[in-house]
Order: sequence, then C-alpha cells, then structure tokens
Amino acid sequence: MGMIEQAIRAKAIELGKLAIRATTSAGSGHPTTALSLAHLITVLMYRVMRWDPAHPDAEGSDRLVLSEGHGVPIIYAACADLGVTITPGGQPRAMSMDDLMSLRSIGSPIDGHPNPILGFPFFDAATGSLGQGLSVSAGLATAARVRGLDKTTFCIMGDGEAREGQVWEAMDFVADHRLTSVVAIMNCNTLGQSDFVADAQGWQALEHKAEAFGWTTIVIDGHHPTEIEDTLRRRRDLGAGRPLCVIARTVKGWGVPSLFGAGHHGVPVPKDKLHLALAELDKRAVEQGVDDLDPVAAAEALRPTSPPPWTSTRTTRAPMEFDAAVAAVPKVAHALAEEKKMSPRRAFGLALKALGAANSRVVALDADVKNSTYALDFANAYPERYFEARIAEQNMVSAAAGLASGGMVPFASTFGRFLERAFDQIEMAIVGGANLKLVGTHVGVTLASDGPSQMAIADIGFMRAFSHSTDGRGNPSVTVLTPCDAVSTYAMVLAMADFSSACYLRAVRADLPILYETDASFPFRGHKVLCERTHGDRHIVLAASGYLVHSCLKAAGKLTEAGIGVTVVDGYALPMDADPVLALAGTKGAILVVEDNYVGGLASELAEAAAARENSPTVRSLLVHVMPKSGRSADDVLDYVHLSVNDIVAAATEAAR
Amino acid sequence: MGMIEQAIRAKAIELGKLAIRATTSAGSGHPTTALSLAHLITVLMYRVMRWDPAHPDAEGSDRLVLSEGHGVPIIYAACADLGVTITPGGQPRAMSMDDLMSLRSIGSPIDGHPNPILGFPFFDAATGSLGQGLSVSAGLATAARVRGLDKTTFCIMGDGEAREGQVWEAMDFVADHRLTSVVAIMNCNTLGQSDFVADAQGWQALEHKAEAFGWTTIVIDGHHPTEIEDTLRRRRDLGAGRPLCVIARTVKGWGVPSLFGAGHHGVPVPKDKLHLALAELDKRAVEQGVDDLDPVAAAEALRPTSPPPWTSTRTTRAPMEFDAAVAAVPKVAHALAEEKKMSPRRAFGLALKALGAANSRVVALDADVKNSTYALDFANAYPERYFEARIAEQNMVSAAAGLASGGMVPFASTFGRFLERAFDQIEMAIVGGANLKLVGTHVGVTLASDGPSQMAIADIGFMRAFSHSTDGRGNPSVTVLTPCDAVSTYAMVLAMADFSSACYLRAVRADLPILYETDASFPFRGHKVLCERTHGDRHIVLAASGYLVHSCLKAAGKLTEAGIGVTVVDGYALPMDADPVLALAGTKGAILVVEDNYVGGLASELAEAAAARENSPTVRSLLVHVMPKSGRSADDVLDYVHLSVNDIVAAATEAAR
Repeated sequence: MGMIEQAIRAKAIELGKLAIRATTSAGSGHPTTALSLAHLITVLMYRVMRWDPAHPDAEGSDRLVLSEGHGVPIIYAACADLGVTITPGGQPRAMSMDDLMSLRSIGSPIDGHPNPILGFPFFDAATGSLGQGLSVSAGLATAARVRGLDKTTFCIMGDGEAREGQVWEAMDFVADHRLTSVVAIMNCNTLGQSDFVADAQGWQALEHKAEAFGWTTIVIDGHHPTEIEDTLRRRRDLGAGRPLCVIARTVKGWGVPSLFGAGHHGVPVPKDKLHLALAELDKRAVEQGVDDLDPVAAAEALRPTSPPPWTSTRTTRAPMEFDAAVAAVPKVAHALAEEKKMSPRRAFGLALKALGAANSRVVALDADVKNSTYALDFANAYPERYFEARIAEQNMVSAAAGLASGGMVPFASTFGRFLERAFDQIEMAIVGGANLKLVGTHVGVTLASDGPSQMAIADIGFMRAFSHSTDGRGNPSVTVLTPCDAVSTYAMVLAMADFSSACYLRAVRADLPILYETDASFPFRGHKVLCERTHGDRHIVLAASGYLVHSCLKAAGKLTEAGIGVTVVDGYALPMDADPVLALAGTKGAILVVEDNYVGGLASELAEAAAARENSPTVRSLLVHVMPKSGRSADDVLDYVHLSVNDIVAAATEAAR
Repeated sequence: MGMIEQAIRAKAIELGKLAIRATTSAGSGHPTTALSLAHLITVLMYRVMRWDPAHPDAEGSDRLVLSEGHGVPIIYAACADLGVTITPGGQPRAMSMDDLMSLRSIGSPIDGHPNPILGFPFFDAATGSLGQGLSVSAGLATAARVRGLDKTTFCIMGDGEAREGQVWEAMDFVADHRLTSVVAIMNCNTLGQSDFVADAQGWQALEHKAEAFGWTTIVIDGHHPTEIEDTLRRRRDLGAGRPLCVIARTVKGWGVPSLFGAGHHGVPVPKDKLHLALAELDKRAVEQGVDDLDPVAAAEALRPTSPPPWTSTRTTRAPMEFDAAVAAVPKVAHALAEEKKMSPRRAFGLALKALGAANSRVVALDADVKNSTYALDFANAYPERYFEARIAEQNMVSAAAGLASGGMVPFASTFGRFLERAFDQIEMAIVGGANLKLVGTHVGVTLASDGPSQMAIADIGFMRAFSHSTDGRGNPSVTVLTPCDAVSTYAMVLAMADFSSACYLRAVRADLPILYETDASFPFRGHKVLCERTHGDRHIVLAASGYLVHSCLKAAGKLTEAGIGVTVVDGYALPMDADPVLALAGTKGAILVVEDNYVGGLASELAEAAAARENSPTVRSLLVHVMPKSGRSADDVLDYVHLSVNDIVAAATEAAR
C-alpha cells in the first residue's frame, strides 16, 4: 500500500471521527450515512476534484452535489479540515473545527442538510429532499457546456434514494443531452431509514437499470481508495462516450461495527458512548496500518488540485421592445393587427426570444409542450441554449436550479398545472436561493375544454406561500405574476430576467385584448387601475388578474349602467402593496376580488391586509368553489363555476357600499 | 383471417371514426392518440376483459386504467357502442351516441380526460396529468389482493409518458409487491406532443428498462388483433411469475395517413375535413376486407365476458378508545405517565393500529419513514394490509387513490414536507373523488434540527386551496387537520376513517402536553376554546393550531399578568366555521393568529372571513416570513423566525384592543 492509499485511509477515518463528533455535538444527524461515504468523499475532495478550498465556488471548479443531503457531516468534516471558505453573514473566512462542532445550531452556517445560502458556497444547491441532486448536476453540467467550462460534476446519491422517480428522469436527461461531464455515484450501503432497501434498489438492480437508461456502469468497493481513485480518474475512458454511473458498494456505519445494521439511521452516537465509537475507528486505523503515518508526507499526498483559471464572459444588451418583437414575426403581427388580441403565452414566447438575443446567459427548458407555451420561439432561435426536458417536470425544475447555480438565467415552462408536479423541487430551489424563472401557461379554469387535470387552480396557494417569505437577498422568495394582456406579459418576462430572485409567471392560454400601452411599466408588488371610479350612488372596487380582468371590465360597464360606481384593478403581482388598493375603496368601501382559481391568491392577499387594519373596506371574493370540468368555451366553464360576468355583476351589486 | 379478427379490425375502424367525430364535435381533443389505441381498446373491451357494460364498476370486474388520459375518446366510443352505464347527476342510464358527441361540453359526463366522479363509473380514477395510471393500477390490484378478488388491472400508458419518473416508481412498486394482476401496456406510437419521443422512450429502450425493473416484456404489433389477444390472454404464462409489460408498437393517427407524423397531437380534424378523414378509415376497412361483415356474426364475436359474481364483505366494529390504545403499549403508557406528554405522530400510530383492528378496509402505506411516522404500529400488526412504498411519494399517493377506488380506506403517511412531492398526484386523486387519508408528520418549523428541506411550511397553502372547494359528495375537497395534542390527534384519525372525503392530518413531531379529556369531540370545521377570556383592560384572541397552541397558552399567562385579557383558540380544522371565532373577539376586538408555517393557513382563513363582513374584529398574524434553518431546539428555530412566546406576547400586546 503506497503513501497515497495510506493517507486516504487515515484521512477517511479522521473525517469519520469528526462526523461522529459533529453529529453527537448536534444531538441529531446521520453519522452512519456519513461513514459510508468516508472514502468516496476523501478521494473526491482531496485527490480527484479540481478545486480550491479558498475559492470553493470558483468558475472552473469541479462540483460535488450531495443528493443524499443527510450524509453531509462527512463533507463538513473535510471542509473544516481543509479550511474551506465559508461566508456566514456575507463575511468570508476559513471554516474551523468550532464551525464543524456548531453543526445544526441556530447561528451556524453548517445546516442539517446542504444549503449554500447560509454561507456555504462549496454547495450549489440545497438538497435533503431526496432524488433531486442528479437533476441539479445535469443543470450544472449544462451551464458549463454553454459557457465552455471544462469541469466535472460529481453527484452522490443513496441506493434507497434511487427509488425516487426523479432520479430516472435525470438519468434520461443526462443521457439524452450527452452530459458526460456528470458522474453519478450510487452509494449502495443497502440500508434505508426504516429497513434494508428493496431488491429493486440492490446494487445489481441499480446496475441493470442505469445501463438500460443509457449509462455505462462500473461496480466498485466504495471503501477502497485506489479502486475509487482509479475509477474516477479514468471516468472518460470508462464511460466511452456515455455518462458514467459508479455503483459503490459501501457499509453504513463503516468502521464502527456497533453502528452496523438497521436501526441506526439518523441517530447520533450518545455523548456517553462517543469515546467507544471513536475507539472503534481508531482500531480500524491500527488494523489498516495507518495509525502512525508521517504527517508531512500524508498531507502532501492529500492536496486538492486547483482548477484552471477562468474569466467569466457575458453578452448583454437591451432586449427588443414589444412592437419590434411583434413586427419580427409577420404571422403574429398580422394576427394582432386583425384581431387586436394576443395570448399571454404568445407574448411569453416573443419575450423569451428577445431575451435570448439580449442576454447570453438566458437559457430555456420546457417539458414537451413548447409548441403550446411558445418556448418554441426560443428553441428555434437558440437551440444551443434550449434544453428539451420531455415529460418530466421534476427533473426540469431541478435542472433549472442547477443552471441558475451555474450562472445562467433559466426559464422553465410548461402548463402551470404540471409545475405542481415539481412543487417539492421548486421549494428546494427556493431554499437554496436559486434564481429560477418559472412560467406556467394555460392557468385557471378558462382553459376549459381539457378539464381539471390540466387547469392550474391550486398553484396559487402554494406559490403565494413563498411570496411572503424573504429570501437571502431581501426579496420575496417567489414573486407571482399573472398578467392580463400581451403587453404586460412581455414587460414582466423581461423584468423577470433582470430580477435576482425566483419568479412564477402565470400565462393564460386565451387570446386577450391588449389593454396597455407598450411604454407602461409593471413594477413587482404593484397594480394597475384600469377603470377609474365611475359615477354611482354606491361603489365597488373589482380586483382581478389574468383572464378575469377582462370580465371585470365588462361587469363594470353593466354596473355603471345600473348606477353603481366601479373601479377595476389589475392585481397582477403577489406579493402586492395592498394599501393603495384598499385606499381605492376607502374605509367605508368595498372590494370584490374575482379569481378563476381556488382560494389562496389575490383575495387572500387583500383580505389579510384589510383584516389587519381598523377601518378597512370589506373584501369579498368570487372564486372557484366547485370542481371544474370540461366545457367547450371559457364562458361555459366560468358559468359552471359561477364566475360569469353576470355572477360578477350580481356579487358586486350585493357587495357595493 | 377468422371472423373474430375481422370483427376486431372492423370495430377498431368504427371506433376510430367515432373518436374522430367526437373530437371534431368537441372542437378539441386528441384523435391521433385515440387512433393509435383503436385495436388495443377493441381487444381489451370486447374480447379480453371480464366486465359488464351494465355494471362497469362491479366488484369482480377487470379494470382498465388509461394513464395517457388524453387518448380517452376511443374508450368513450367503445362505451357508447356498448351502451355502458353512466350516471350523470347520479342517474344511471346507458351511454348513447349523443353522449359521445357531447364530448367536453359543459353538461356532459364525458370529460376531456377520464374522470369517474362526473358520472363515468367505468373509470376508477381521474387521469390526464401523465405518469400516474400505473400507480393507480397498483393500488387497485393491491385492494383486489386484500379482498381476495381475482381480477386483472390493465394499464395503458404512452411512450412519451414513460419519461415521468413516477412510472418507474410504480414499476418498482408492482415488482416489489409481486402484483402480477397488473398488466402494463406501453402504447409506443413514437410521438409526443411537440416532437418525436427521445431515444430513451423508444420501444427498445422501454423494453430494456422494464426488464431492468423486474418485469417480463413482450413486444407486439399494437394493431394486430390476434397478436394483441393472444398476448393478453396468455398474460400469466408469459409473465412467468413477474408482472407483464406489453410493448405495443403503434401508429399515431392509425388508419388516417393525413394525420401521420408530428404536428397532429391534440388537434381535432376540422369540420370541413371530417369526411376526408373518415373516408381514409373507410378505405382501411376495404383494404382489410372488413367493410362488409355479417353484422350478427361480427356482433357475436365481440361480446364482453361478464365478471364472476362477488359479494362484498367488510368487518367493522368500534375502534378502541385512546386510553385503551395507550394501555395496550406499555412503553407508551409508561412514557405518558412519566412525562405527561405524547407527540401527535405517536398518537397517529396508535389510532391507525386501532383502526386496523376495527375496520378490515383500512390499509396503510408509508415511504420508508414508518418508524418516524409510527405507521410502523400498523405495519407490524397488519402486515397483509400494509404496503411499504419506499422513498417514492408520488407512487404512494396514486396507489392510495387506487386503493380507495378499490374499496379500501387508505392512510398514506410520510413527513408532511415530502407529501409536497406528490401534490400533483394528490390533486388528481381529489379530482377523481378518491377517499384519501393523508398524514404528514414533522410539520412546521419546530422540526428544528433537520432544517428547511424537511419542514412542511408551504403545504398548508396548497391543501387549504382545496378545503374551500366542494367535492361531488358536498364535502370540502380536502379537510385539513392540525391537532395540538395526542388525544385530539387520536380522535381525528378515527374520524378521518369514517369521513367519506379526502383529509390531510398534519402531525407535529414533538412531544406535547395533553390538553383534552379523552371524551372530547373534534368536529370537522370546528375549533376549541382552550382558555376562556381572562380578565384585562384590553383583550386579544390568540388562534393557533398544533405546536403553537402551547406557545399561545404560555403567552396567555404572561399577557394576563400584564393586564391583557386573553382567549386561546385551537383552530385545528380547515375549512373552519369562522363566525364563532370572530364572535369571541367581538366587533371591536382583535385576533392574533400564530402559525409556524408560511402564509395561507389559519390566518388567511380568519382574515378572509373577517374582511368579508362589516364590523369585524381585526385579524393579524404572526407567521413564518423568513427562510428557516436548522436549530438544535424548537425554541431556537421559533426564535429565529420570530415566533417565540415573547414574540407572541409582543405582537398580542400591540394588537389587543
């Protein structure tokens, strides 16, 4: 056994001891998973990866995505040992052993699961909800390809974790796009949380599956330093043009027999047993003859290789304006001139293409509906920056998070309804601070004919939940935008690209009349008054977004005829500065919010603001309260769910004050 | 070619023509997908399946789950031809050709995608969001096994659809549980919506994948009647102990060359081209020599086989009471006696086990965290009714929906955070009216040490969206329950099993003091007043659920000492009858809602109710507005997100009136 192998073995034991101590210090965590990764992490971080602990997020660095985030203590241990730069509170400094022992404490940047935004730039994304890391890795690799960066992204995932369908979506995506700079490492320690993994997650089964998904596989002993290192260094040759999946057979609780077997998942070693567990690892060092290495030689053997220097490039110019974008597509220009209408989704396509021309960092993904979302405009114009994600929304969103971490501005689009498939992934992206641009088309019941399986009507409740939480940049964790015409859609899409936090644009399917001048601005948190208080004995403010703004304008005409004064508000943004909208009604006034979705959107926003203050106007709502169904027209379905213009008129007449 | 084959060919053409006509009538829909299924559906519904068109949901019937829901017009065509019983408005009658031509119209039970609750009992579940049908089929097969029913569940899915990771979760689940009564049929027509499918979804790739997932595969010509029928009849022999996956090579737009290739997905034939498309199919009939069959002989050849008779059995008795359930587990009884505390999740485990004894229809699933959720109690006691779903939440939820359709009462549990992975599947289950019992444990930020990747804090916004929508039974589409002690948790779990609509129980991880007498009742929509108005110059109503009820009780003590009168409300249910809670504050009063989740829960509920009325109390809230992180104790994290008892006291002092 040469010095390198000896040094790796000794370091793995040292890191294992630190991981045990850190989790015992925390009183929670996953020491046995960490131990199963001890040799893999040592070889990666001290030998194979090209990276610089002083600049863990340097542009050209190899990346390590720990998909099974609960194994993180072993990486924290390595980072403490290497004095990796951490940035708690924005202040860079070298990570210390004290930092390591602060694991999971409230003031620590060392969270229970990986998370870059707390000041840990070694990581690219928050992980911990399982099965997402390979998709993130695919996104990082995609970004590197677009930017011409030669780096490898290593993704470690668990065998039990490989039950998550998203893993196989990612396997397909990596193979489809020939992202051979991704190396998947399956940590096959045979144990899940509550039991041994199923046969379907046994190492042989995973090997067969990965091969069927178009990967080259190799099975190794995940505790053998030389085998690991040889495999990872020869990754390109081994892959032979396909992505490489390393099936690493490991032992959960490696080195500590008292922690072997079921029942030890997520359980730290009790303080009074700590010395025993550490002694077991010391015994391994003696057995392996690595308990007394020359420290200088060992340190020399374990020095991370620096990445090549890299200078970032980026082309940006002002994006084309709406009129020019329309004029550039004669068919669109003709249709607009003829019908005076355009769908928000059509405008999204125009804006995305304009962004593509203006900003070399803008990329797009779509889930086999690009001809419906109009992401096709971008795909045709910038095929090298378009990544077809096929019918696999979870992978699409996590890959977009990886692209964002890789320095791109990713727009991920599909029907709003199908983004629900990826709500977990969206939340993880938000937790990790990913600058994600989500576009959900065909939102609301006005989609009509396809029925409720295709209608985004519960999306708003989930997405608004984040809109009132602040991300690390002081912005809302998500800004939700529901434009009511093509001009405002176009403007909002451009603004999304310039905004540094996550956004969700909800684009209606239907062709809608243009309501705004092309020089109008649509600040986030803002609103527009579309119909200034008409004359009447009583008064009502109608607030809506998207399709129903148009219904409210129709209702306003009828109400005014009937002697009720009306103000119509386009409440396109969540969160919303609600005070000016409440002021439009006045303290004795009334607001009626009209939405073609379930509860949890604009009506909740205004009701919460009103209820919190004394002397507020009343805020009532007309929302979807029955399960919608197919109808041949938007009007049919709006009627069915009691949201017709007549329903609005009736409710407004009752609510007006 | 024998009469049977001729008759199948002729019928497939006839159904194809009907499907084209129906989608043209609707002005939308997917005729080309329908045509690719023409022969498969004809063989299944007229030849292979044991079922009775007069009783399409008879207990012993074979089932057909159309996972690629957009292909449904071909099934509707067969159902109209066979006069299957439909039940629009609850009134059974035979489906007519007029019904078929009413496809997608607002008054029709024939929706754009399959949905049983509109009056179409041939189907077991709503489909249309792709990739879920095989999981539903697995649930149906599981229910049949528990009940001793000998029936086959056929599941048809698309090749492009097989990109969804959930498909592979389901493949694992079926193989794991040896559900050989499930037959998967992959409709490999090579085309998705926007393009040809990827190589990864080519028929050879799917064949390799299915084999790697433990299935037996067979590749057939999906337009060859005899090949289809022979394969499906010999399914058990062919499977040879493994589940059978039939890879059917088909043609999108079969029989109508003008609809071949890309660009025809989801596009109906225009009215003025209808005769041409129908003529193309007529030409096929001539070519195949089936344009002039003897109608009597042909009809005789195509008669569905009736299912065997079956009498439903069910054992029910009153479930054990809380005290008895505790006493039955000495360790739990001891801990409760010692500490006077128990976690809601612990009580869930006890209640689930009690239900298992009381009701033979209660089944449980969990996603490898049964030792944390305490579903383990049930798994140990009733292993034949427990289905380990491993780390694959999407499949778990859709399988639960299938179990519900199969007559069971399924409890599906995991961390609340991980149910977010299955929000799409939950919505589809709700759309289809599945009587689902979801249990999410470890909810809220008080989970503490594991950090935000494990905390359910945005779940409430999504789930409440459904709580204000009415399902077909007149109940809320989802009732959300967040109990604050073990006694109320136990009572609510028992009540969930007796309720006929979907419920979501949010069970806190922490041990919490018992607040209720064991004979207390917890009606849905209700609340409890835990601290009757204390004396003070001013007054505040504190409303909370779960963990924070206890914080509010502590805050109430401090506030009362400071001269502020307090009422504490346990707002355990959403939807909530808000008026009595508003009345507790009085028209000039104030309510402070305290929640350890993002916006969209109890605070929204009460604010919306208050804002809608004149002379309401003010409703303010103290919620999570910053991204939480790991902390070593619940108090540390509550402090971090500004939800400590002192924060409550300060906010209440400011809000009291």
